[in-house]
Amino acid sequence: MTTHDLIRDLREVSPAKIVMLVADGLGGLPLTPDGKTELETADTPNLNECARVGTLGLSTPVLPGVTPGSGPGHLGLFGYDPLEFQIGRGILEALGIHFAVTGRDVCVRGNFCTLDAGGKITDRRAGRPTTERCVATVNKLRTIKLTGAEVFVEPVKEHRFVLVLRGDGLGDRVNDTDPQAVGVPPLKAEGADPASQKTAALVNEFITKANEVLKADAPTNGATLRGFAKQPAIPTMQDVYGLKSAAIAVYPMYKGLARLVGMDILDAGDTLQSQIDRLKATWNDYDFFFLHYKYTDSTGEDGNFAEKVKKIEALDAVIPAIRALNPACLLVTGDHSTPSKMKSHSWHPVPTVIVSDLCRPDGASEFGERQCRTGGLGHLPAKHLMLLAMAHAGRFGKYGA
Amino acid sequence: MTTHDLIRDLREVSPAKIVMLVADGLGGLPLTPDGKTELETADTPNLNECARVGTLGLSTPVLPGVTPGSGPGHLGLFGYDPLEFQIGRGILEALGIHFAVTGRDVCVRGNFCTLDAGGKITDRRAGRPTTERCVATVNKLRTIKLTGAEVFVEPVKEHRFVLVLRGDGLGDRVNDTDPQAVGVPPLKAEGADPASQKTAALVNEFITKANEVLKADAPTNGATLRGFAKQPAIPTMQDVYGLKSAAIAVYPMYKGLARLVGMDILDAGDTLQSQIDRLKATWNDYDFFFLHYKYTDSTGEDGNFAEKVKKIEALDAVIPAIRALNPACLLVTGDHSTPSKMKSHSWHPVPTVIVSDLCRPDGASEFGERQCRTGGLGHLPAKHLMLLAMAHAGRFGKYGA
Repeated sequence: MTTHDLIRDLREVSPAKIVMLVADGLGGLPLTPDGKTELETADTPNLNECARVGTLGLSTPVLPGVTPGSGPGHLGLFGYDPLEFQIGRGILEALGIHFAVTGRDVCVRGNFCTLDAGGKITDRRAGRPTTERCVATVNKLRTIKLTGAEVFVEPVKEHRFVLVLRGDGLGDRVNDTDPQAVGVPPLKAEGADPASQKTAALVNEFITKANEVLKADAPTNGATLRGFAKQPAIPTMQDVYGLKSAAIAVYPMYKGLARLVGMDILDAGDTLQSQIDRLKATWNDYDFFFLHYKYTDSTGEDGNFAEKVKKIEALDAVIPAIRALNPACLLVTGDHSTPSKMKSHSWHPVPTVIVSDLCRPDGASEFGERQCRTGGLGHLPAKHLMLLAMAHAGRFGKYGA
Repeated sequence: MTTHDLIRDLREVSPAKIVMLVADGLGGLPLTPDGKTELETADTPNLNECARVGTLGLSTPVLPGVTPGSGPGHLGLFGYDPLEFQIGRGILEALGIHFAVTGRDVCVRGNFCTLDAGGKITDRRAGRPTTERCVATVNKLRTIKLTGAEVFVEPVKEHRFVLVLRGDGLGDRVNDTDPQAVGVPPLKAEGADPASQKTAALVNEFITKANEVLKADAPTNGATLRGFAKQPAIPTMQDVYGLKSAAIAVYPMYKGLARLVGMDILDAGDTLQSQIDRLKATWNDYDFFFLHYKYTDSTGEDGNFAEKVKKIEALDAVIPAIRALNPACLLVTGDHSTPSKMKSHSWHPVPTVIVSDLCRPDGASEFGERQCRTGGLGHLPAKHLMLLAMAHAGRFGKYGA
């Protein structure tokens, strides 16, 4: 029996609500062996209270030592084995801008770039154009027609756009055309199988026409593509857990991930406070809320230890408002660690706390890596957290007689 | 996706070096419930410093409660699931004496024994002959010819030799002829399938001829065989991890295990110091070094608690020389526990420490079973340690977008 089939058997109809608060890249590292991590340094009275009444643990996103991108990191949290369900970047980008992806689509992330007279890349991000310029450039590309596929070009922001080819029998095993270097031309697309060769031919034709359309538009006179992807077959949260689920996320990628597993995407505004306001306003409409907080990751990526500490403290400040709604289960965790020491995502396990009336408290007094290490949830794969959330919300029946 | 395929996807080209120091049978037990283990008793300032700056954990060789032999113990450490990849003793013995095994070979471990006039075993180890006598006896056996297979007989040491039958369609599902008792004759070989029946017939013919050749040579006038084995299909460390790998081991079996996964076998001399000297001398030639230290196991097998403590202290003394080479990741662990209280291998999880600039320290101050139990690596299968070593050496890219 698969875990999802087990969940379908165990789940019960219940009004109990679950809140999953994901602080992106939450886990960290101390700057010296005897020092504290960002989370341990932060003044977090409300998360510490969660630790006191709840149960702690360390969550491993994929496998020990494996650093996840946002896709596998979040799929794991939602209870989907990230080695079984794989999502390409193009799909994430398309979902993130609310593009209605179909099963006939190949999606790909595009970057505007600057080409010199010889067709070589001089700036991989086209001087980071304004989003207005991005929209204008995309509008020019929308004039391009191809034989054998519909073409959709959608702006994201700055130098980024999404290209979608919709047609029958299109494969997604196509190489990135972004050479990840300047001084060389973009790569030709090639397909690894007949269906993908069909896609590659369309892509190469698109790029030739794009170069023509944009030839007078330096610095946005070229484009590279990466992350060709079709939509994976993935069951919804409703199907697996019986949870009517909503995402309250500010950034497009996380909205896209949530949409992929069937969540409704709510208007989250731009701030943590507007996210909390939305949570309150829609509290009676859903069983499961995914709240995503980006800034613990972005400050970590910047290598800014002090700023990551502040962003954690800002998150801590909204915990009482969430708990005041009295969710049957509140789970606070991250999709991976982003130690400011490393300025990148990492494999280190992620501090996690579950708060529920059904918790077995573990004597912890602070929410930090050290206390999570010896917490009552142990060290566990992220994909098992939803099992615990369902159980602590009282939404699971007994397995077997 | 298999873990090995994942590793092949994630691995990056890097100059970062990994040292895996395996103290055979490292884990132990206290002699009384309130006592300390051998490792906790030993004075290990250098391993304690590793614990302070590194991350601790407990490694389970196969599954909880499962006591491994050296083969599965080491395969797990090298990142090969020991339940998926199984190695027969005959193969280990053959590899350990530098015999060039081919896919047509069935290898088997031989013991010279003493037979009485009735053909019954009176000494299963033939009075532990000198290695010179072993060689002379093997030379007599080399006169034996069989129809249907080439025969190779190779000395190991004392009463031990290796027999290799090379031919087409030979199976290895043949019982041991060693009855593990005296006062009874050696067992007849029988095959469990047609290919193995062919092997068994050859073996029985070999033994009949051996008894004739050796009949005047008591106490080395007979032989028993055990561990019939063909070579398993196993990818190399280079193939899986992209690591140019070397083994610095004194004992044949560990050299054999390392050769099985494609490591170069370096001249290690006979002492820990000569092993360290070899490590220094070849530091620039390899990405991965496997150092094997036998005496923590052999003293445990002897039931000599105090001597195991001393052997651990001797190992501790070479840690600074290894760390002075500045490996990107140093991993110190064992292939299993060998508590002197039990005088045997055991299933108890093995104290493990990883030292790297990318460690999340866990507040530990000593390298011992108690502190490893609450370490930041948690309790994990041995087969995941190489994932962590690769990550801590900075040799893995990110999984997914």
